[in-house]
Amino acid sequence: MKPTSFADMDCSIARTLDLVGSWWSLLIIREAMMGVSRFSEFERSLGIAKNTLADRLAHLVEAGILQKVTSDKGIKYKEYVLTEKGADLAPVMMALAQWGDKWSAHPDGPSFKFTNATSGEELQRIWPRHATGEKMDLADIQLVPRAKWTRKPNQQ
Amino acid sequence: MKPTSFADMDCSIARTLDLVGSWWSLLIIREAMMGVSRFSEFERSLGIAKNTLADRLAHLVEAGILQKVTSDKGIKYKEYVLTEKGADLAPVMMALAQWGDKWSAHPDGPSFKFTNATSGEELQRIWPRHATGEKMDLADIQLVPRAKWTRKPNQQ
Repeated sequence: MKPTSFADMDCSIARTLDLVGSWWSLLIIREAMMGVSRFSEFERSLGIAKNTLADRLAHLVEAGILQKVTSDKGIKYKEYVLTEKGADLAPVMMALAQWGDKWSAHPDGPSFKFTNATSGEELQRIWPRHATGEKMDLADIQLVPRAKWTRKPNQQ
Repeated sequence: MKPTSFADMDCSIARTLDLVGSWWSLLIIREAMMGVSRFSEFERSLGIAKNTLADRLAHLVEAGILQKVTSDKGIKYKEYVLTEKGADLAPVMMALAQWGDKWSAHPDGPSFKFTNATSGEELQRIWPRHATGEKMDLADIQLVPRAKWTRKPNQQ
């Protein structure tokens, strides 16, 4: 189902999907955000086949989203931790999770929550804002293709 | 690569992915946000095979993300427009697009931009905020699984 030319595609959404790569990748990133770092932990928490997991982890390392580091616990094993680029996916994960909790709620309620580690507060819904910080009405949001704003006046 | 039990999965990210469904679905939603509504327009702008497009549109209608309406232009054709549930995916699309523009920029720059239709302002990056409206440091964000906050004290 995936088009072949996503990486080159002139669409930042498509290129993000291309890097994040697959459903499994997003779930691996979710686990990493919850503090999972060892191969065996990912395997257990996701119930994922070893070869699929190895493949997805290698892809995420190659994409610069995870980095493989030697554990600081004095034991010789490798850990997978989010890079700055990977941690910067938090707004994507929040937006996906909050939409799911609103429109496709699980009978048991949210499976996890986003909180602020310092204040303990639960995070409110991530939302587009005016420069003033005020929340924006979604109906006011326009997605404008480049052709529309780079077009010369005589082409209008 | 997709696990079989996503819809039932106790994870709001996985359930969102299950509803949004595929790479093509996200690109169809992107087009709908840009005002595309007719089958032939989706077909042309995405370069997608007719049967794949028909399949994805039917899935998005079934998922309640698009609705099929009769055009108000007095011509007898159907249009696909976002429902409230579909329009509510704007924060997801923004987060994906803005991450892609930051970390995987296209040589020609962003392929589209999000603007406010009323004020014309370009939207700043969508970002988690404190209740006060102040931007939050991503390093402070914790993703806490339900087991951790519903666990009884003696299980700690």
